[in-house]
Amino acid sequence: MSKAITSRSQDYSQWYNDLILRGGLADYSAVRGCMVIKPYGFTLWENMRDVLDRMFKETGHQNAYFPLFVPKSLFEAEEKNAEGFAKECAVVTHYRLKSDPNNKGKLMVDPEAKLEEELVVRPTSEAIIWNTYKDWIQSYRDLPILVNQWANVVRWEMRTRLFLRTAEFLWQEGHTAHATMEEAVEETRKMLDVYADFVENYMALPVIKGVKTPNERFAGAEDTYCIEALMQDGKALQAGTSHFLGQNFAKAFEVKFLNRENKQEYVWATSWGVSTRLIGALVMAHSDDEGLVLPPRIAPLQVVIVPIFKGEEQKQRIDAKVAEITKGLKALGISVKYDDSDNNRPGWKFAEYELKGVPVRLALGARDLEQNVVEVARRDTKEKQTVSLEGIVAHIQQLLADIQENMYNRAKAFQQANITNADTWDEFVQVLDGKAGFVAAHWDGTPETEEAIKEQTKATIRCIPLDNTQEEGKCILTGKPSKERVLFARAY
Amino acid sequence: MSKAITSRSQDYSQWYNDLILRGGLADYSAVRGCMVIKPYGFTLWENMRDVLDRMFKETGHQNAYFPLFVPKSLFEAEEKNAEGFAKECAVVTHYRLKSDPNNKGKLMVDPEAKLEEELVVRPTSEAIIWNTYKDWIQSYRDLPILVNQWANVVRWEMRTRLFLRTAEFLWQEGHTAHATMEEAVEETRKMLDVYADFVENYMALPVIKGVKTPNERFAGAEDTYCIEALMQDGKALQAGTSHFLGQNFAKAFEVKFLNRENKQEYVWATSWGVSTRLIGALVMAHSDDEGLVLPPRIAPLQVVIVPIFKGEEQKQRIDAKVAEITKGLKALGISVKYDDSDNNRPGWKFAEYELKGVPVRLALGARDLEQNVVEVARRDTKEKQTVSLEGIVAHIQQLLADIQENMYNRAKAFQQANITNADTWDEFVQVLDGKAGFVAAHWDGTPETEEAIKEQTKATIRCIPLDNTQEEGKCILTGKPSKERVLFARAY
Repeated sequence: MSKAITSRSQDYSQWYNDLILRGGLADYSAVRGCMVIKPYGFTLWENMRDVLDRMFKETGHQNAYFPLFVPKSLFEAEEKNAEGFAKECAVVTHYRLKSDPNNKGKLMVDPEAKLEEELVVRPTSEAIIWNTYKDWIQSYRDLPILVNQWANVVRWEMRTRLFLRTAEFLWQEGHTAHATMEEAVEETRKMLDVYADFVENYMALPVIKGVKTPNERFAGAEDTYCIEALMQDGKALQAGTSHFLGQNFAKAFEVKFLNRENKQEYVWATSWGVSTRLIGALVMAHSDDEGLVLPPRIAPLQVVIVPIFKGEEQKQRIDAKVAEITKGLKALGISVKYDDSDNNRPGWKFAEYELKGVPVRLALGARDLEQNVVEVARRDTKEKQTVSLEGIVAHIQQLLADIQENMYNRAKAFQQANITNADTWDEFVQVLDGKAGFVAAHWDGTPETEEAIKEQTKATIRCIPLDNTQEEGKCILTGKPSKERVLFARAY
Repeated sequence: MSKAITSRSQDYSQWYNDLILRGGLADYSAVRGCMVIKPYGFTLWENMRDVLDRMFKETGHQNAYFPLFVPKSLFEAEEKNAEGFAKECAVVTHYRLKSDPNNKGKLMVDPEAKLEEELVVRPTSEAIIWNTYKDWIQSYRDLPILVNQWANVVRWEMRTRLFLRTAEFLWQEGHTAHATMEEAVEETRKMLDVYADFVENYMALPVIKGVKTPNERFAGAEDTYCIEALMQDGKALQAGTSHFLGQNFAKAFEVKFLNRENKQEYVWATSWGVSTRLIGALVMAHSDDEGLVLPPRIAPLQVVIVPIFKGEEQKQRIDAKVAEITKGLKALGISVKYDDSDNNRPGWKFAEYELKGVPVRLALGARDLEQNVVEVARRDTKEKQTVSLEGIVAHIQQLLADIQENMYNRAKAFQQANITNADTWDEFVQVLDGKAGFVAAHWDGTPETEEAIKEQTKATIRCIPLDNTQEEGKCILTGKPSKERVLFARAY
């Protein structure tokens, strides 16, 4: 690597950008706020997507695809939702370009090709989908509808950051329709659990499940459930949300069904989504000053093997052994790359794969071969071990599992160490300005107080934990009585 | 099924729409020219996509993702390409809506949120991608770049048809960069072979590989290779294209590399794509008046089992046997559904799964069970057989293979029977107005003649077959000398 990466202590957000760009995950693009997801980053996303997609199907969902564009009149239909997204949506107004008479070789929007109705590029698809469900639902027999969509969406954010906040991003959005409120709420909670399961067991990132305050709710939802993760700088990151939409969209789009009692009733709805933002969380939670640290279960590349040799004869013997190891690993479904390119020295390769966060690196030299051993380096702890080549494949398989577990435990310990109770305003501010993290504090339950705290500290209520214990207390700002603590944090 | 499907003889294009809509593949949407791909249709697309994606990766390609939007200045850069797509592109001009003061509850485009530069919704991604490759390529060591993208694209077509021609569609677009012309041409041909392999061996649809005439080339390409399929109504359908782009985009975006001789050189390019249009081809090529006929290798559902019983006791015995069969099929990776819903009669279910094109249907009754047999119906020939329950799983596995093969052979025979030589203008017109299909005829090689023939007959040159035999002849229109026949047809 030419120059070193910015360290976390030096400049955390520059460190993050260095990892994304130099780790080969993504690039800036010519389009304001939009990024290019590079092959290495996209393979990571594919691995995450494939696991989630399997989980969705195992819970009875099917994929479908709905239009990218939402006609303005549909976009308007659910008022709160429209209000929430109107400020940041890309709008298509014309359907043709023509050559610019005053500017040879250039094009201009053709004023004669103006759309009768503007089209909003979907920031989320409730409107277009519920307008479709209207035609799909007549009786309770047509319910539930359990549909998911993998798609790109556009939200015209003013301040953007690679993966964390981009004008266009990739996500999945589940949109389900139910005959009863109970069933819809159950679906909302079930999908929250699916998200928590995925983020904890595949991304090795512990989360707190909770419900949002009205201020932080999805526009158009009755209740927004979320999973909140903690980054190394003590800031929180919302990793996924699952919304109970009540009958809001059914009413906005007149979606009724004939229930078992033969009565017309509005349909109950949920929606839930996670996005490429998760990749930002993954990077911020686990990586270090040498580069990315990726969990084995979703890493684009799990094992890299670097040969160390002088001359063809040595190389051939190493190649033969590597072919044998590679075969064994692939048979177990472990991805492996043999980097015997002669462009770079081993030392350069070590740094490169450290930067890219490959969980396990093998370095195999001629002398190792004679002694029937190999150097095995794990990315998470940077420990190196000399291991016998006997049963090396099984050793690596176990090591990958250990790394996955260790990464989770490390992140879990960090999370636990960074949930702090604050009982007074001074304590509250002190923690926020100190180690930060989650601050568990009492709040009087009013949006006004929530807003005031946000203005004074930039901290928001991340969630009211689902497993909260009831406890008498006083609001840290107003001193008014409160029955439970809520989790505050500064967040991405 | 309420009312019967329109028959092919009655109204071929209505028949097609009936199958798409009532077969549950897709729906019209509120957005002009855009469709909703329903779960059954999307599962079909997923199956096709997964096979193609595997083939791309086996040929060394990786997926990536590039922005949905193309700034006008980039869109303009490659003139031919811009000219080709300017007439049909959706243009984003604003990034915000605001509430309409004169129209309570309504929104309007915020004139203060006008973009400095308009953004074109990608109709294809060469421009945005080559503008990015510029930063990725310095020396021959950075080549080749073998990247594919699965994405949605928008082309503002005036006349649209479900799957065949929609304003928004899903596709994959491969974009590769090479150090030499030879390597780029080889890639172009290789991907054409991948497409032919997929369409013939998975979609059971025989194709003709060829090269397009300059008139029919992709805008910005040096050469466009294609695979052409034949529909049951004698019209041709372009099933996939692979383009050799020469150095056109490299020159438009100044993408040079340092070659082995240490000289700066422009990069060589290819692009290739297939889209959800393939689903339209699949439907038109194989289906019949009872509904869809889907090839087992990509069918969303391969086997359906319908129980025929009176009373719980009978049903329980059938359930037990079905559980056993289902277990066996799933173990072989065969998808199966047991439809024991009591909403509908067996007869209704038979018609429903025929409409949906499920390759194999089992009907299992109480008496069958006593005799240890089951009724097996295959969708392609509609033959029914009473088969012993002994080894039924192996029987079904073989039957699915037979159906796949039979569907291909049937389509191949149809294709062969519908390639007709025409040596005079009268013969040419006669065939086109008669059985249609491909007409192999001599052409003087000029765009003018090609255009004149198109105007008079609506027939276009689908391709110059790659395996063409050289043969002296006279152009059917001008009588001028010609060295080979080209394939004409009316096309979708």
